[in-house]
Amino acid sequence: MSNIIYGKNSFLEALSNNRIRKAYLLKDSSFIKELEKRHIEYETVTKARLDSLSHNGNHQGLAAEVAEYKTYEVGEMLKDENGLIIVLDGLKDPHNLGAIIRTAECAGADGIIYKKHNSVRLSDTVAKVASGALEYVKVAEVTNLVNTLKFLKEKGYWIVGTDAAARDMYDRIDYNMNTVLVIGSEGEGISRLVREECDFMVKMPMHGHINSLNASVAAGIMIYNVLSYRQK
Amino acid sequence: MSNIIYGKNSFLEALSNNRIRKAYLLKDSSFIKELEKRHIEYETVTKARLDSLSHNGNHQGLAAEVAEYKTYEVGEMLKDENGLIIVLDGLKDPHNLGAIIRTAECAGADGIIYKKHNSVRLSDTVAKVASGALEYVKVAEVTNLVNTLKFLKEKGYWIVGTDAAARDMYDRIDYNMNTVLVIGSEGEGISRLVREECDFMVKMPMHGHINSLNASVAAGIMIYNVLSYRQK
Repeated sequence: MSNIIYGKNSFLEALSNNRIRKAYLLKDSSFIKELEKRHIEYETVTKARLDSLSHNGNHQGLAAEVAEYKTYEVGEMLKDENGLIIVLDGLKDPHNLGAIIRTAECAGADGIIYKKHNSVRLSDTVAKVASGALEYVKVAEVTNLVNTLKFLKEKGYWIVGTDAAARDMYDRIDYNMNTVLVIGSEGEGISRLVREECDFMVKMPMHGHINSLNASVAAGIMIYNVLSYRQK
Repeated sequence: MSNIIYGKNSFLEALSNNRIRKAYLLKDSSFIKELEKRHIEYETVTKARLDSLSHNGNHQGLAAEVAEYKTYEVGEMLKDENGLIIVLDGLKDPHNLGAIIRTAECAGADGIIYKKHNSVRLSDTVAKVASGALEYVKVAEVTNLVNTLKFLKEKGYWIVGTDAAARDMYDRIDYNMNTVLVIGSEGEGISRLVREECDFMVKMPMHGHINSLNASVAAGIMIYNVLSYRQK
């Protein structure tokens, strides 16, 4: 199986990681020389064809067929100390998944885990929003999040979930431990069974009327708070 | 002038704030009774008409014409101490503006300021992404950001900008001051003239290959770091 990616950032990342099977670009593209040099198959196409390949996305004149997204096993993300793994519980929006992958990459997190079913999965939209980060972040798709969390606990990880009704503030616990951050879904937060596996439930301060952050923003705040804590 | 909003969250917020001039909904909508009780004009329409009104957005069966978005003067955002104002320098993406408005509302920030020109402005997409937060956050559109920053400095505010090449980490300065956080544009960061008005330039740790966060995620991390600092 293969996927179509598009847009300059995604194209460049795929190119630099030798993931392009076939490139599609305009006939005056400056990338043709580079593709020929690397012996990568390409086809010059019309703008209309690129519009179609990218489902009218912002392709910037570039699309490519790439090898299917590589995923990892959870066991490949483990660290002896100060590991950081992000678990997404039922996230639905590809823009959120893409933004979280991008944040995880910037933060040097060890991996992202989500359920194979009833969750958003890797796609061209996710890859585009991730701005190339997907090439560098380990993503694992699992069938059962609860079993995965139990496995991580056995391996010495502590599970931190967020909930508006939690007692502790997110920035008041000790993150000098192997940490799993669980981010809930956009509408419903963390599911009951996953919540039961959490060693800590924390909340973020909410001083307004809306009381819920965008999932990728909440993830960003949680992730960077861990970094901030560990550097003090 | 008026705007069209759509989607359940935006509709409910507009309804609860009496901003709906005319509602458009399906003929079996459960909101009809409420609209009649409040003497709000409405029209029952087809799903196709809602698709069209929302430019094929996720309208969830609800759209409304609302009064034009209210904006504020910068002078209305000032505080004597521990104020927090977000300045956006040339942001382009309505999803980022919407997510930042949502975060600012959750964090209890005093306002958001951006340029009238060459920036994304309030729109139905922004309102939708903001999930109702636009009703509660003060937004000011200014003609000249540099003059606005000079004005804020005269009023006792300190200007904090972000830049990957800065020397100080974002979580190492004292935010117990009237603070303006400047968030740069998606592609280019903070412009030179705006940068020259910054009292502090700070960076965020980048441990990966990508080295740039999504603008709304970066804003979220910066904003919540201020809250975190002030509560310690």
